[in-house]
Amino acid sequence: MLGNFAYSNPTKLYFGEDSLCYLNEELPKYGKTVQLIYGGGSIKKNGIYEQVITLLKANGKVIVEDSGVMPNPTVEKLMEGIQIARENQVDFLLAVGGGSCCDYAKAVSVSVHCDENPWEKYYIRFEEPACPIVPVGCVLTMVGTGSEMNGGSVITNHEQKRKIGHVFGDNVMPKFAVLNPKFTYTLPKGQMVAGIYDIFNHICEQYFSGQDDNTSDYISEALMKSVIHSSRIALQNSEDYEARSNIMWTATWALNTLIAKGKDTDWMVHMLGQSVGAYTDGTHGMTLSAVSMAYYRYICPYGLAKFCRFAVNVWQVEPKGKTDEQIASEGLSRMESWMKELGLVMNLSELGVTEEMLDGIADGTFLMEGGYKILTRDEVVDILKASM
Amino acid sequence: MLGNFAYSNPTKLYFGEDSLCYLNEELPKYGKTVQLIYGGGSIKKNGIYEQVITLLKANGKVIVEDSGVMPNPTVEKLMEGIQIARENQVDFLLAVGGGSCCDYAKAVSVSVHCDENPWEKYYIRFEEPACPIVPVGCVLTMVGTGSEMNGGSVITNHEQKRKIGHVFGDNVMPKFAVLNPKFTYTLPKGQMVAGIYDIFNHICEQYFSGQDDNTSDYISEALMKSVIHSSRIALQNSEDYEARSNIMWTATWALNTLIAKGKDTDWMVHMLGQSVGAYTDGTHGMTLSAVSMAYYRYICPYGLAKFCRFAVNVWQVEPKGKTDEQIASEGLSRMESWMKELGLVMNLSELGVTEEMLDGIADGTFLMEGGYKILTRDEVVDILKASM
Repeated sequence: MLGNFAYSNPTKLYFGEDSLCYLNEELPKYGKTVQLIYGGGSIKKNGIYEQVITLLKANGKVIVEDSGVMPNPTVEKLMEGIQIARENQVDFLLAVGGGSCCDYAKAVSVSVHCDENPWEKYYIRFEEPACPIVPVGCVLTMVGTGSEMNGGSVITNHEQKRKIGHVFGDNVMPKFAVLNPKFTYTLPKGQMVAGIYDIFNHICEQYFSGQDDNTSDYISEALMKSVIHSSRIALQNSEDYEARSNIMWTATWALNTLIAKGKDTDWMVHMLGQSVGAYTDGTHGMTLSAVSMAYYRYICPYGLAKFCRFAVNVWQVEPKGKTDEQIASEGLSRMESWMKELGLVMNLSELGVTEEMLDGIADGTFLMEGGYKILTRDEVVDILKASM
Repeated sequence: MLGNFAYSNPTKLYFGEDSLCYLNEELPKYGKTVQLIYGGGSIKKNGIYEQVITLLKANGKVIVEDSGVMPNPTVEKLMEGIQIARENQVDFLLAVGGGSCCDYAKAVSVSVHCDENPWEKYYIRFEEPACPIVPVGCVLTMVGTGSEMNGGSVITNHEQKRKIGHVFGDNVMPKFAVLNPKFTYTLPKGQMVAGIYDIFNHICEQYFSGQDDNTSDYISEALMKSVIHSSRIALQNSEDYEARSNIMWTATWALNTLIAKGKDTDWMVHMLGQSVGAYTDGTHGMTLSAVSMAYYRYICPYGLAKFCRFAVNVWQVEPKGKTDEQIASEGLSRMESWMKELGLVMNLSELGVTEEMLDGIADGTFLMEGGYKILTRDEVVDILKASM
């Protein structure tokens, strides 16, 4: 654990099949008017909406509806949410959904009492909020992003063809999150596996950096092994409580800052995937899976020792009698097989990306420091081509 | 992750070789009079005392000294600390030391404004504080107990021959903890290895229970592997920053409630070790190591599958061609070899325990539920005998 860092995480988690009832403990802490944020209405079909409404009413809340949050929340939707919050003078934002709803709720929370353009302020200039923040709570119905216990918020601007994430501070993080694994049972398989790969990739993004032998790396390997193991069970039986609960818990710990401690990170797969998302509106996890193998195979020689460790510790590659290159390559092949087993999107063409888009996608990809190599724009284009 | 649970941890950690300066951020949040809690004065020799005093004075604090906290803090010392706090109307308790100082600070914090006898109230009747709590901060100079990020507080009553731990709630946990790996460099080797085994045993206590395949178990294995790896490096070079920093970070995460989530626990090695401690005043980690092998070998058949997993995942035992009993046994043998390599106390006689004490130690051992088997008093006596 090299370097200096601070760690704290203010979000309170309520986990388990009975966890929704803890809204009764949390809701009284906040004001009367609650903006209820959700997506396309699946929570009305599976009964979660009714349960939440009942609890809100039992706690004497005035409910302001804010539905239709899309998988990649847009600037236009954000402006709509801010207007709803202002007009109704809401005291609390309750997001019921997946990462998109949580991300969106945070974006609304920092913008309600701010006169500036939120896209410009937070997603272009990366400034911190100087205004009062409307507190956020989450009821999770889809796992992957870890947004329930972090300050991350990704917003898409289709006009500018940009999908950008801002990581806000502790004060913007959800006050609490309700994690009920059963709420994820009715998720379509495609979304489940996209979420699983999102989790796995969050861990990889933080794992693949640094030369030191770091406790964070051991924990990262543990989370990867847990999610690989449980993903195979969930694929066979999407209502296996144990598997779904392990996936849900792993998702939270994969991206609540813990495993990044003592590490540098560049988040390049997310930079690539987010730019792809701005062009295709593809499911977040699938934009990551589509570029991952080309990226990792390209970057592998620059972090060979760590890719060997990954192969042996995560994928149980037998190292005896093999060169480092062979060990690392075998690890990546096993990772690729698992991704195919899950049914992930393995190339950009499948997401509707055309050769003509590649220049624009490369232009929209932030070139970050912190990994094994700072990519050039040409290298980004090469990786994108290899992902087609 | 079976069962329902809540997770939150309010302690803020400042980690790294420059972390002490963060006292400048934290001290202004609390009142003027600070009770400075420390042990036998080693912090005066290694310069940490001077650095802390300088920072306290720079922040305009009135410093009230409370030194002489012993490795196993006693009820008598606790009463003294309470009196110091009351007489000086202290606003804040700053513990500079290891787990003993942190544990003691928490015991003082819940007792200053409470009229009842703290030993009776907290350590015999296990009640929660109903009085105002004096906030606690920690500057860690010895690692092992995890007391810097949990609510645990162990106090010893020599008259009653009882050493008992109370785990207080979030409100009693340290507000912040400063973790500077360099502050542990000057620790005598015996204390370093006792702390390392304390860490390892904390993980074992939480790992060895439950039938489910749990993300907490994967994280536990990661922490065990990290501490085993770093312990060997620190044993060769006690000033290897990377090793000491990994050990320090692992200690915190081994006992800040994370890896207990979704698990039942009985903490039987601690129950045995604490009773031994009440009779011998032995170093905490050494009282654990002295009873561990006899305990785990006794309990192994009741949790065979987990002991096999432990052997393969933590100790790299090759399972091929072996019975489960052989695999599990080989894992425990490798653990024993590592303990001997560290130079831990491996039997009770070395701690000064005599045959005549065994009945008393057995009487002082709480028989807990939550592990693979609820021990009877006779079984406790057998384990103690096998540990002689």
